[in-house]
Amino acid sequence: MTESIAQAEATSSPLPDPTGGRPVTPTRRTLRPLGLGEVRVTGGFWGRRQRVNGDATLQHCRHWMDHLGWTTNFTDPAGPGSAQRRGREFSDSEVYKMLEAMAWETGRSTEFAQRWNSHIDELTAAIANAQAPDGYVNTAFGGHGRRPRYTDLNFGHELYCTGHLIQAAVARARTYGPDPLLDVARRAADHVCATFGPHGIQSVGGHPEIEPALVELARLTGEQRYLDQAALFVERRGHRRLPEHEAGWPYFQDDIPVRHANVLRGHAVRALYLSCGAVDTAVETGDTELLEAVAAQYERTLARRTYITGGMGSHHAGESFGDDFVLPADRAYSETCAGVASMMLAWRLLLATGEPRYADAIERVLYNVIATSVADDGTSFFYANTLHQRVPTEPVAPDKESLRFGGGSRAPWFEVSCCLPNVARTLASLGGYLVTADAEGVQLHQYTDAEVRTRLDDGRPVGLQVRTDYPETGTIVIRVTETGDGPWSLTLRVPEWVSGAVLSGAVGRRSVEPGTVVVRRAFTVGEELRLELPMSPRWTFPDPRIDAVRGCVAVERGPLVLCAESTDQDGAPDAVDLDSLRIDTGVRPRDAASGATVSGRFQPPAGDGLPYYPSQPPRGEAHPQSIRLVPYYRWARRGPSTMRVWLPKDD
Amino acid sequence: MTESIAQAEATSSPLPDPTGGRPVTPTRRTLRPLGLGEVRVTGGFWGRRQRVNGDATLQHCRHWMDHLGWTTNFTDPAGPGSAQRRGREFSDSEVYKMLEAMAWETGRSTEFAQRWNSHIDELTAAIANAQAPDGYVNTAFGGHGRRPRYTDLNFGHELYCTGHLIQAAVARARTYGPDPLLDVARRAADHVCATFGPHGIQSVGGHPEIEPALVELARLTGEQRYLDQAALFVERRGHRRLPEHEAGWPYFQDDIPVRHANVLRGHAVRALYLSCGAVDTAVETGDTELLEAVAAQYERTLARRTYITGGMGSHHAGESFGDDFVLPADRAYSETCAGVASMMLAWRLLLATGEPRYADAIERVLYNVIATSVADDGTSFFYANTLHQRVPTEPVAPDKESLRFGGGSRAPWFEVSCCLPNVARTLASLGGYLVTADAEGVQLHQYTDAEVRTRLDDGRPVGLQVRTDYPETGTIVIRVTETGDGPWSLTLRVPEWVSGAVLSGAVGRRSVEPGTVVVRRAFTVGEELRLELPMSPRWTFPDPRIDAVRGCVAVERGPLVLCAESTDQDGAPDAVDLDSLRIDTGVRPRDAASGATVSGRFQPPAGDGLPYYPSQPPRGEAHPQSIRLVPYYRWARRGPSTMRVWLPKDD
Repeated sequence: MTESIAQAEATSSPLPDPTGGRPVTPTRRTLRPLGLGEVRVTGGFWGRRQRVNGDATLQHCRHWMDHLGWTTNFTDPAGPGSAQRRGREFSDSEVYKMLEAMAWETGRSTEFAQRWNSHIDELTAAIANAQAPDGYVNTAFGGHGRRPRYTDLNFGHELYCTGHLIQAAVARARTYGPDPLLDVARRAADHVCATFGPHGIQSVGGHPEIEPALVELARLTGEQRYLDQAALFVERRGHRRLPEHEAGWPYFQDDIPVRHANVLRGHAVRALYLSCGAVDTAVETGDTELLEAVAAQYERTLARRTYITGGMGSHHAGESFGDDFVLPADRAYSETCAGVASMMLAWRLLLATGEPRYADAIERVLYNVIATSVADDGTSFFYANTLHQRVPTEPVAPDKESLRFGGGSRAPWFEVSCCLPNVARTLASLGGYLVTADAEGVQLHQYTDAEVRTRLDDGRPVGLQVRTDYPETGTIVIRVTETGDGPWSLTLRVPEWVSGAVLSGAVGRRSVEPGTVVVRRAFTVGEELRLELPMSPRWTFPDPRIDAVRGCVAVERGPLVLCAESTDQDGAPDAVDLDSLRIDTGVRPRDAASGATVSGRFQPPAGDGLPYYPSQPPRGEAHPQSIRLVPYYRWARRGPSTMRVWLPKDD
Repeated sequence: MTESIAQAEATSSPLPDPTGGRPVTPTRRTLRPLGLGEVRVTGGFWGRRQRVNGDATLQHCRHWMDHLGWTTNFTDPAGPGSAQRRGREFSDSEVYKMLEAMAWETGRSTEFAQRWNSHIDELTAAIANAQAPDGYVNTAFGGHGRRPRYTDLNFGHELYCTGHLIQAAVARARTYGPDPLLDVARRAADHVCATFGPHGIQSVGGHPEIEPALVELARLTGEQRYLDQAALFVERRGHRRLPEHEAGWPYFQDDIPVRHANVLRGHAVRALYLSCGAVDTAVETGDTELLEAVAAQYERTLARRTYITGGMGSHHAGESFGDDFVLPADRAYSETCAGVASMMLAWRLLLATGEPRYADAIERVLYNVIATSVADDGTSFFYANTLHQRVPTEPVAPDKESLRFGGGSRAPWFEVSCCLPNVARTLASLGGYLVTADAEGVQLHQYTDAEVRTRLDDGRPVGLQVRTDYPETGTIVIRVTETGDGPWSLTLRVPEWVSGAVLSGAVGRRSVEPGTVVVRRAFTVGEELRLELPMSPRWTFPDPRIDAVRGCVAVERGPLVLCAESTDQDGAPDAVDLDSLRIDTGVRPRDAASGATVSGRFQPPAGDGLPYYPSQPPRGEAHPQSIRLVPYYRWARRGPSTMRVWLPKDD
């Protein structure tokens, strides 16, 4: 059903491609992604987070997974099927995501490479030990005393786990080279192809993930059958082949074939992972119809089902998308993993189309979901990212496995702890999401301190050094550190939110508009380009169809959504009732150390009878005051607090 | 721990008290409830619904419970523990609720009494057959091949089921007289007392219900130990004695002792049933502190956590209350059972305190939740009662057991089908929620065609006939059909929403204010009182702290919340986008056949990019038009539609 993928990166070399370390390597694309071997984040906003991630977060993940037995499930001395198995049915996948993060980490930095290499070797041996002779590997199903294989396709997560195993092995191969983990993953993938192939089980995994994983494995190995199996899974979906369940087929995206749907729906992470797999198969097979269908679904989802933060999935029930414009700030679910998944999808669409709006979507979710989720020390996190906290939440003890997903305070670990290892693999591989190249030159999509070294398609070397304290300020300086002769193009994304951006350099100084700006010339080593993005805080008004935030405004500053947190307001903590805040939009927001201030009043609440009145409820006296706003990602870092992103307007 | 309850209705007579048929019979109270033997609904809004309920709905329940095996679980020929058991772990309770409804029905009407008496006898024999020698009866737990008794206190629902068994037996005894069902229930209750008594299992049932049931059984039988056990369950709660669960202790109300809480929280039905049991034990034991605590919790819940419809519980996740003022109209959960439970609690507080605001609360939930839930033919129903339907939902096939609770179309049955038998028992016993008496006279709390015959505390007979087409109009005529000599008081509730009410009769004509109006005189047979409640449609504005409906108004007409349904608007169904509707509140709503019209415009939607704008989004041309509103309870009766209760104001 597909053309050959034999032209992929297939390598039999024991050493990785020095330009490698790319999360996604489409063979057909508009833009060629640069890998960790070509883009090194050297500091700044993301550099700090990468360091914490590569040390404390990975250590924390390993500690908890050992502590809870998720790693030792693979080596349970009591043997398969013992009652000793611990963790939820998908706990294997967390080990794999951690492995993937460790693999990217060894490709990103030399500092911790030795430490994580030994972890990878040890865990690989454990997983290999648990693998059945036919390639199946899962500690929750199969074998004596366990539920039989594939008896719970809706929620068993077996194919999902296998997908994450494959992704870990692919990351390992792309940063270190083929190793025993890749052998395990290939055997597991071969088992999947044998079991779910054209003549096998005529169904799909309830939680997608195997699909993009199989495509990456096909790209890595050049094996067509993995791509064929991924395409088969994508095509099978949407025909109600999964057993009926009270969650409903839309929850599993099994209600409508992928190519016929017009918006993402159901469980947000499932929908987004499936979309990633669909884009991957579409680009490899030249299936333009499928690619355009997924792109249109994502566009509509961005336009109607996405929070201002870039977060997706508004409902706690079913961790699912709501109907169009159902985006409550209260108890916004906005699962961290859905943020990661949205970034994965946007990146694939950016590579496929070259459209800068996908890089805008990545920026939004990076600064406002992914940066929000993890604590400064990297050892606690949000699973759900609410946009409105009405009641302060007590912190979770550092040794406490949290059972609840509600927001308010970051927890060190959850019974379902997908998000932290998911963020960890994203941060470790972040260098692979920043820069691309094509026949004309190089494109910078995200701005952080970084060093870029690559070759153009014609072989000419290019080196760039990016220096910026973005998003604290909007000044980005790009220095050419290496260049071949003759002209090539340096393309810079100009974010969708900006107004009054200016580009200056050897070619002079000029205004640039949102989208991209292309500088094509024969660059010289040492020359600098300077992009100035004005960062004044600005009002943002919601579409009137979003009922939940009618009559409210938000304030953004550069790529950052701001919020009012009780901690920052004048008055005793108990006296600051953010839900009685009314903002005067007649006074422009004023810049203030990486945040803003606005004018507003705390209106005393209305009566205490039924909250419904025959006329506009009475309003008490209130004096205007200055309200401090801070970046949303910073909230809940200074003890229990209340918080609002959307601020009611004074009327 | 409690005073004697021996003065209760305890009867050894094989025939019921002719004044009986009361759902609740507090021995200490401000108002004495009149029973089905004293209040007969003869027609009108509720008379029609009672007839459908007593015939079609009960038949429908019996059919489905047989069809799904919930009744035959009790007589499974394969014996206890066979794999044949069907239904969820709480399916026994549905059989009991149906039995309770049948019992009230035999007390309400003679028309179907014979039919339901035979069902009751048959089901009673089946249940008795399944009862263990020690009194335990549950088809999901205990016995060979089943989970052991009381091994899942959080979700096993064993005590909950026993509570509903007891309530069914109490209803049977109060309408027919003590019979074998009462023997079964007493043995079950004795088992509970033995197992969970002071020296028994030191915990509670995850889903309250046993508490009010035991108090009613104590009232019926005069057995102190049932009351003591109920009080013990109430006191034990709130000390985290239930196992930790991801739902969290607040879900089970096991986070804070009942007497120390200040608002209802967690699973709404659980919270409300527990509150009923707490009021019941408080009034029987003279525990004023506990009574006042629950009353204050309910007041605060009404003021901050209750929909305009009287519905409670805003979240699908956990079927739970939200924080204060978290009342999204979109996907409002507002479970039908929570409406029933709120009415049960309000009735108890009304009897305890005499405060008419509790009758107001009952009216609101009766007309806007309970009347909404059931289809006209009584054979399909809403489990959840959303206040905003954005996308039309296809009808559920009449032979289809629905797995989903989302709104949009009533379903004939659900995998979890608590709501229909719960409404059935409520409608069958509705006559017992309308009228009370005290030393001064008689109080009418709800208005529907009815005949009342009772005796005052001093023995004088009183007869009243109520005629009204309320809530179609607001004219209520009360004719005295029987009276003893000398003065007594007739008290009429004047609803909280009314303005300009007038009372006229032999004593002249006068304006009356919301609350109650008392007519004290020596009535004569044949004289009439006429209460006129103006029913003009009116605006209702929400408390500004309810984010979800900021900038919106609702329209109410008498006790009815109105809504805009797409079906009623001019234009093709596909062209009517209620979410783009903007209402002109400068033009008063106009009366229209049991509904209203308002002026509004359908504003074309804003753009289709990101739904966030740097300035107020552009608005297209739109012409004012008349928007038809119908009672909310009528919505979704004419095919798939969209609907809004809260209408955005034009600004």
